[in-house]
Amino acid sequence: MNLAGLGEDKLVAALLRGLPGAHDLLRGPGDDCAVIGRPREKTWRLLKTDCVIEGVHFRPDEDPRKVGWKALARAVSDIAAMAGRPRHALVTLAISPAAELAHAKALYAGLKKCARKYAIAIVGGETARSPGPMFISITLTGEVDSRHCLLRSGGKPGDRLFVTGHLGGSLAGRHLTFQPRVDEALWLARHFPIHAMMDLSDGLGIDLPRLAAASRCGFQINESALPLTPGCIPSQALSDGEDYELLFALAPRSATKLKLLWPRKFPKLPLTEIGALTPPGKSATPLHGYDHFA
Amino acid sequence: MNLAGLGEDKLVAALLRGLPGAHDLLRGPGDDCAVIGRPREKTWRLLKTDCVIEGVHFRPDEDPRKVGWKALARAVSDIAAMAGRPRHALVTLAISPAAELAHAKALYAGLKKCARKYAIAIVGGETARSPGPMFISITLTGEVDSRHCLLRSGGKPGDRLFVTGHLGGSLAGRHLTFQPRVDEALWLARHFPIHAMMDLSDGLGIDLPRLAAASRCGFQINESALPLTPGCIPSQALSDGEDYELLFALAPRSATKLKLLWPRKFPKLPLTEIGALTPPGKSATPLHGYDHFA
Repeated sequence: MNLAGLGEDKLVAALLRGLPGAHDLLRGPGDDCAVIGRPREKTWRLLKTDCVIEGVHFRPDEDPRKVGWKALARAVSDIAAMAGRPRHALVTLAISPAAELAHAKALYAGLKKCARKYAIAIVGGETARSPGPMFISITLTGEVDSRHCLLRSGGKPGDRLFVTGHLGGSLAGRHLTFQPRVDEALWLARHFPIHAMMDLSDGLGIDLPRLAAASRCGFQINESALPLTPGCIPSQALSDGEDYELLFALAPRSATKLKLLWPRKFPKLPLTEIGALTPPGKSATPLHGYDHFA
Repeated sequence: MNLAGLGEDKLVAALLRGLPGAHDLLRGPGDDCAVIGRPREKTWRLLKTDCVIEGVHFRPDEDPRKVGWKALARAVSDIAAMAGRPRHALVTLAISPAAELAHAKALYAGLKKCARKYAIAIVGGETARSPGPMFISITLTGEVDSRHCLLRSGGKPGDRLFVTGHLGGSLAGRHLTFQPRVDEALWLARHFPIHAMMDLSDGLGIDLPRLAAASRCGFQINESALPLTPGCIPSQALSDGEDYELLFALAPRSATKLKLLWPRKFPKLPLTEIGALTPPGKSATPLHGYDHFA
């Protein structure tokens, strides 16, 4: 069977079977980041790797500053999804020898801009010759307060589902300029009983079922409540992907308080209740999102 | 100017100018790994990223098990070069949707074999669709005893230069099956006044000048002493690259003792004195190695 027929999640599951583990691995494959540490430590370490490929994640004629921003910001969004702070980045750039130095420098200018904004140190990396498309792989470490580390798997039936920002239509430009929700995630984790969280990279239609499955829950969403990007229809909010907003499950008793306090703290960023987690096997909403191999 | 005209070292220097730093970054770009920690801590953390690309680092018809081994072993070799122990790996695989699942699984079998041999936990990663060649990027963390962390930059004029193993001819097969020198490096760092160390990935002809420059030294080598792979000529030992052996600079007073003890400890692996570091500006030997963009 080829990979297109299998789909990404089954491919990953097939590849990761029988992996050697480690005594200090708190969370391995299957969440936004790997979590490393010991249960009683105050701070846990996060590890993430993420790549963008020319022709898949950006067009060859795209502004290289924006491509650099996006490459690093995607990984920052995954650190945010655990309520962590990004720390150290490594950059792997595979590029044609015929490329211009100015192009590579502009790409790094975008990377550095994102690094400065999120207080990330770029501590190393590699350049290699690519015989095909440009390929940028980012490694990002982070730290998270062990009391507030948010996994995908802690959701409970009855939890209310929220998303930040607007969904859909990212290809019109936002997929290159989005702002990872680091401060928002830290604030949420510190002040509210968030049970599960992730960032929306493949679209709510793929990512919400992943969060629900990790939490051994079903889910229901209210399609008419989806915070659509102006000009988008609901199916785009489910399927377009690359929103890089937060999706989280909140204990129902705190929903009213959160809806009251959020707009005071983050007046420019909408927060929307879109549905709830349900007992397992009860999902009623058919959903579709982006599969990397389909 | 395009990248082929610039060469790899100048490209990296141009890209890394003005990088945001960090208070806990002990060693950033320019060594085999980034070193993170504080001066008085007992253990420092190592971070490395390394990629292999189809058509550059391996042929499309290569045994995928060997490709997987190589992908991870290259990064292990960099951790070894600092006298560190590898710990956690992340694997990024960009592959055509038309690829067979069996091929991807065989590649992972090679990765897992290397991970088990060097007690590495594979803690995460990513799969992505490649519209071009297959691309495997490895992130590897490590730990190093802060008393024994070996940089490239500690060499002194008069230090004796040694290499492990044989050099040259790796393309005949060893570039896919080499054994990173983790135990050897740990033993050297614990028992001998090693001033500087690195692993040989681009060939002695490029890598030795890098070690000498980082140490602000010149160097001289005795070409007739080079430990040639059987069937190779000296220029191959300088230029072929992908030897993945250790190159290190040893305080001269300990050379005799090392040459006595090494064969008892590692009877199957040759160790060869090939020259010495000299005062800066005194390098007499012209050298050539592999430049990724030339």
